[in-house]
Amino acid sequence: MADMAIQARGLYDFNGDLDNGELTFSTGETLTIVTQDIGEGWWEARNEAGQQGLIPESYVQLLEPPEPSFPPPPPPSAPVSDWNTPQTEGGDWNNDAWNSHGSESWDQEPPHAPDYTNHNNAGGVNNQGFRGGGMQQQASEEGWDDDWDDENEDNSSNSTTNTSQDQLPGSGNFGLSAPKREKKQMTQNSDFSKYGTVKKSFNRFSTFAKTGGDAFLMGTVSANVSESDLIKIIDTQDGPAWNYPSQPYTCAIKSPKKESKLKGLKSYIAYQLTPSFSNIQVSRRYKHFDWLHERLEAKFTCIPIPPLPDKALSGRYEDDFVSERMRQLQLWVDRMVRHPVISQSEVFNHFLTCTDEKKWKAGKRKAEKDEYQGGKFFLTLQTPPTSLDMRDVEKRMEIFCRFVKGMDDNMRNMLQIGHDSRKKHTGPYKREFQKIGGSFKQLAETFNLDSAAHSQNLTAAIDYTGDTYNEIGDMYEKQPREDLDYMLEVLFEYKGMLSTYPDVLKLHEGAIGKAKECERLKDEGRMPESDVAAVIQRADVISFGTLAEMNHFQRERVADYKDMMQKFLHGQIKFYRDITQKLESALQKYENA
Amino acid sequence: MADMAIQARGLYDFNGDLDNGELTFSTGETLTIVTQDIGEGWWEARNEAGQQGLIPESYVQLLEPPEPSFPPPPPPSAPVSDWNTPQTEGGDWNNDAWNSHGSESWDQEPPHAPDYTNHNNAGGVNNQGFRGGGMQQQASEEGWDDDWDDENEDNSSNSTTNTSQDQLPGSGNFGLSAPKREKKQMTQNSDFSKYGTVKKSFNRFSTFAKTGGDAFLMGTVSANVSESDLIKIIDTQDGPAWNYPSQPYTCAIKSPKKESKLKGLKSYIAYQLTPSFSNIQVSRRYKHFDWLHERLEAKFTCIPIPPLPDKALSGRYEDDFVSERMRQLQLWVDRMVRHPVISQSEVFNHFLTCTDEKKWKAGKRKAEKDEYQGGKFFLTLQTPPTSLDMRDVEKRMEIFCRFVKGMDDNMRNMLQIGHDSRKKHTGPYKREFQKIGGSFKQLAETFNLDSAAHSQNLTAAIDYTGDTYNEIGDMYEKQPREDLDYMLEVLFEYKGMLSTYPDVLKLHEGAIGKAKECERLKDEGRMPESDVAAVIQRADVISFGTLAEMNHFQRERVADYKDMMQKFLHGQIKFYRDITQKLESALQKYENA
Repeated sequence: MADMAIQARGLYDFNGDLDNGELTFSTGETLTIVTQDIGEGWWEARNEAGQQGLIPESYVQLLEPPEPSFPPPPPPSAPVSDWNTPQTEGGDWNNDAWNSHGSESWDQEPPHAPDYTNHNNAGGVNNQGFRGGGMQQQASEEGWDDDWDDENEDNSSNSTTNTSQDQLPGSGNFGLSAPKREKKQMTQNSDFSKYGTVKKSFNRFSTFAKTGGDAFLMGTVSANVSESDLIKIIDTQDGPAWNYPSQPYTCAIKSPKKESKLKGLKSYIAYQLTPSFSNIQVSRRYKHFDWLHERLEAKFTCIPIPPLPDKALSGRYEDDFVSERMRQLQLWVDRMVRHPVISQSEVFNHFLTCTDEKKWKAGKRKAEKDEYQGGKFFLTLQTPPTSLDMRDVEKRMEIFCRFVKGMDDNMRNMLQIGHDSRKKHTGPYKREFQKIGGSFKQLAETFNLDSAAHSQNLTAAIDYTGDTYNEIGDMYEKQPREDLDYMLEVLFEYKGMLSTYPDVLKLHEGAIGKAKECERLKDEGRMPESDVAAVIQRADVISFGTLAEMNHFQRERVADYKDMMQKFLHGQIKFYRDITQKLESALQKYENA
Repeated sequence: MADMAIQARGLYDFNGDLDNGELTFSTGETLTIVTQDIGEGWWEARNEAGQQGLIPESYVQLLEPPEPSFPPPPPPSAPVSDWNTPQTEGGDWNNDAWNSHGSESWDQEPPHAPDYTNHNNAGGVNNQGFRGGGMQQQASEEGWDDDWDDENEDNSSNSTTNTSQDQLPGSGNFGLSAPKREKKQMTQNSDFSKYGTVKKSFNRFSTFAKTGGDAFLMGTVSANVSESDLIKIIDTQDGPAWNYPSQPYTCAIKSPKKESKLKGLKSYIAYQLTPSFSNIQVSRRYKHFDWLHERLEAKFTCIPIPPLPDKALSGRYEDDFVSERMRQLQLWVDRMVRHPVISQSEVFNHFLTCTDEKKWKAGKRKAEKDEYQGGKFFLTLQTPPTSLDMRDVEKRMEIFCRFVKGMDDNMRNMLQIGHDSRKKHTGPYKREFQKIGGSFKQLAETFNLDSAAHSQNLTAAIDYTGDTYNEIGDMYEKQPREDLDYMLEVLFEYKGMLSTYPDVLKLHEGAIGKAKECERLKDEGRMPESDVAAVIQRADVISFGTLAEMNHFQRERVADYKDMMQKFLHGQIKFYRDITQKLESALQKYENA
C-alpha cells in the first residue's frame, strides 16, 4: 500500500455511501489521495481523521490549480473494479494489444458502468460477485488443516493488489477484485533476443513470455509427455475442438456446514461435494476452491478460468449468504465439470475425490509442481496433423477479439438495463399499479355511499378491480425473481468469464507475433529456415489450443444463452398471462353489475 | 375587464407555456396583475410590453413586502378553472354551504391539480374541455343569422366574468371557464323577512333566492300550469324518480361544415344534427349549443346541466379539432337526450327540430320568456301524493353531498393518475422496452460475429426477441388510445357534471333550511301553522325534484361506470394478451436454436 502523499481539496460536498466503501467529505476539505488506481472515476482517499474510502475524482481537485465554480457534476456510478486491469500493471496490454485490433482500450469504463452487485440492496438474489484468482500467484503451501481463518484465507492472493479488502468497509470492492497479475516485468532477456533487436512493441508479449509460452515456442523446452497426459484436439466442421469425453459427469454441492477449530476460535463453512462418477462425498472449504482456481489458471494457459464467487467480508455465516455462495460455487463447478479438458484433469479430480488428508497434501504438492503448466502446457496438446494458415488464424482471432469485446460491452449494457428494470419493477411499476388500484378502491368507497341495490354490484366490481391492480403491483415486485434474476446471473457469469479472456488472447497474439517476427528474420537471413518452420509448427499448436477453447466457449455460449432466453421468455409469458387472467376475472365481476 | 392596477414583481424566472396562455417573465420584472380570480394558484398579468397571460402566483410578489431568497417552488400544475367558483362571487357558498356538511371548501385545489387537458400535448384525444354556461345570464337577443362570428359568438356569456377569453392566447383557460353566476346580491328583502330577523347565515340562500326558489317556497308565485307542462315524479323502490319516457330517442351529430357569411369575412362550423324521432337534419353552430345550454340552466333549476365542450381559440377549423369537438358535442347531446325531463322539454325539442329561421327566432324568444324557469320550475312538478320526512331527506342529502364531494375528489385523483400513466406509457415504459429490445438486438449483432452454423439460429432468435421488445414498446405508446383515453373522457365528463351539482344541492339546502326556519317561527308563534304546512309541502316538491334528479344521476353513473370499467378492462386484457402472444412467438424461435 503505497501512500503517494498526493493531496486534494474537495470541490463539492460529497455524501459517500459507507456501504460502498465511499468516503464523505465537504467542500474545501483536504484529503490525502491513497491511490488513483481504482478506475471508473473513483480514487481512494483518506481524510484528516484517518478515515479512508472511495471518492469521485471529479469532486476533488489535486492541490495546485484554482477551484472552478461550476455546479457539481453527477457523481460517477458506483465503483466497479472487476474488468479494469490496474493501470500500473496492464497499461501495455490494454492499450497496445487491443488497439492492434482497432478496438478501444478495454478498461475505459462508460460513465455509468453496469453494476449487477448493486441490486443486492433491492433484495432478491444475494449476489456476492465473483473474483478472479491470481494467474501467476505463488500457490500457498498451507496444508489441509492450517490455521487460516476465513478472514485471512485469501490473503495470499492480495499480495499484488493495491487495495486490500480490509481497507474497504462493506462491499467496497463491489464484489469483484481486479484480475490479479504480477507487475509487468520486461522480458527482454527472453530467448527471442538471440535473433536480434527486441522491439519495444514486444512488451505486449510479456504475459506470453512469463507463462513460458516463448520458451515453448522457441523450442527451448521439451518433454517426453506420457500418453495419459496428452490432450487431444480434433478437427470438426467448426474448426479445431477439444475431444469431448464420452462420459460426462456432474458434481453436486450440498449441505454447507459451519465448522470450527482451535477450540472455536476459527470457524468456516465446509461444503459437501459429490461427483456423479464416484458418488463419494468430499468436504471442501472456500480456500480449497481458491487453491484449485489458482492451479487451473497456472496450468491451463489457453483456457480462461471463470472467476470464483467473491469472498464476502460480512455476513458470511448468514444462511442466505451461505446458500447463495453455494449456488454460485455450484455454477462454477458445473462449468468446470462441463469443460472437456479441466473435467478430465488430475488436479480437478484430486479436488473432487480426495478424502484423505495425507493424500490431499501429496496431491496438492504434486499439482503445484506440475511439469506441464504455463507455457509447457502446450507440450501436452496432441493436435491434428493439419497445419494452419497463420493469416486465416489471425483473422479468426481478430473477429473473436471483437466478439469478446462486443459481448463484454453487451453484458455491461444488459446488466445495467436489467438492474434498472429490476429496480423499476420493485419500485415505480409496483407503485403505479398500486396507485391505480388505490384509486379504484377509493372510487368504490365513494360509490358505496349510494345504498341503492342496483349500484352495489358495480361498487363491488370496482373494489375487486382495485384489489386486482394492487395484486398486479405485487406481481411486478416479485417478477424479477421469476425471470430477470436468472438472466442477470448468466450475464454476470459471462461478464466474469469474458474478463479472463484477454490474457488468453494476448498469449496467442504474442505467439503469432513471434512466429511472424521469426519469418521476417528468416527473410532477412538472420534465422535458419528449419528453426522458423519449427517455431511456426509450435505456434500452430498454440493456435490449435486457443481455437479449440474458443470453440468450446462458443458451444457453451450458445447453449447458455438459448437456455437463458428461453427461461426469461417463459417467465415473461407466464407473467403477462397471469396479469391477463387476473384482469379477466375482474372483468367478469361486471357481468352482473 | 377591470384593471385593478395591482403591481407585482417576479421572484423567479418563469418560462411560460404560450400554448397554455402563460406569460413568460424574469426575476425582478414588474407585472400588472389583471386578475387574481383565475384560481389554482394562477393569476393573469400583463408585462410592460403589454403582453398578457397566466402566471403562477407563487412566482411573484405583490409590490410592498421584501423579496425572500428561497429557491423557486415547483410551478403549480396548469390552470384549471372549471370547478372553482370565483372568490368574488361564490365565497359564501363555497365556505358555508359545504362546511355545514363537515366537508372542506370545494375550491381548495390540491397543489398538483389533475389536468386532463394537458395530455393533449402528448397526442391522443384532443380534449378541448367543457365549459359551463351562465345560469342567470341575459339571453342574447341575436337571431338566426346575426353577424357574430365564431370569435365573438360567446361574448354575451362573458359579461359577468373577469377574464374574457380573447385576452388569453391559446387555450389559456384550460378548457374550462368558471361557472358563470351573477355577482352575489344579498336578498334580505325577500318575502321571508316579513316573518322576522333574517340571520346572517341566510346568505347561503342567495342562490336559491335568486332563482325564485324562495318565492315558490313562500307561495308568492302561482300559476295554472297546463297539463302539457307538468313533469311527473313517481315513487320507486330507489326513492322518487322522473317518469322515464316510454319512447327514448337518439340524436346523431355529423358532417361538420365550415360555412361563412358576410362575403367570407366571418366563418364558422355548422354541425348537422339528426334526431331519431324525426329523421330530419338540422344545422347548428356552437353558439346555438351555447344558447341552449343557457336556457337549460335557467329553466331546470334542480337539474345540473353538464358543461359544454369549451370553445377553442385557435385551430378551430383544423379537422382534428372539429371532429374532436363534434365528438364532445355528441357526448353532451347524448346525455341530454337520455335525460327524462330535458329530452322531453319544449326548448330542447325546438333546438333539435327547428329548420325554419323565423320559427327559430320565435321559439328562441318563447324559451327565453318561459314562465316556468328558475324557482317557478317547481310549479310544474307533479309529485307523488306522499309527504317526505324532512330529517330523512336531509340525511340523504348529506350523504349525497359527501358522495358528490368524494366523487369529485376521485375524479381529480384518477385524472391525475391516468394523465401520469398516459405519459408513462408514451415515455418511460416505451423507452424501457425499447432499451431491452435494443440490448437484445446488440447482443445478436455481436453473436452474429460467430459464423458457426449451430449458432445462427440462436442469433436470429435473439434478434427477433429484440424486435419483439421494440414492438411491445410501440404497443405501450399506443395503448392509452385503446383503454385509458376512454376512461379519462368519462372521468372528465363527470368532473364537469359534478362541478355543476353544488348549485343544485345548495338550492335544496336553502329550501330545507327555510322550511325549518318556518317551523321554528311557528313554534315561537310567529308564523301561522297553515302557512308553515304549505311551505313544508312546497319544500317537499323541491326535495322530490332534487331526489328524482339524484336518482337519475346515480342511474346514469352506474351505467356509465360499468361501461367505462368494462371497456378499460377489455382494452387492458387485449393489451396483455397481445404482449403474451408476441412473446410466445419470440419463444418459438428458440425451438430450433
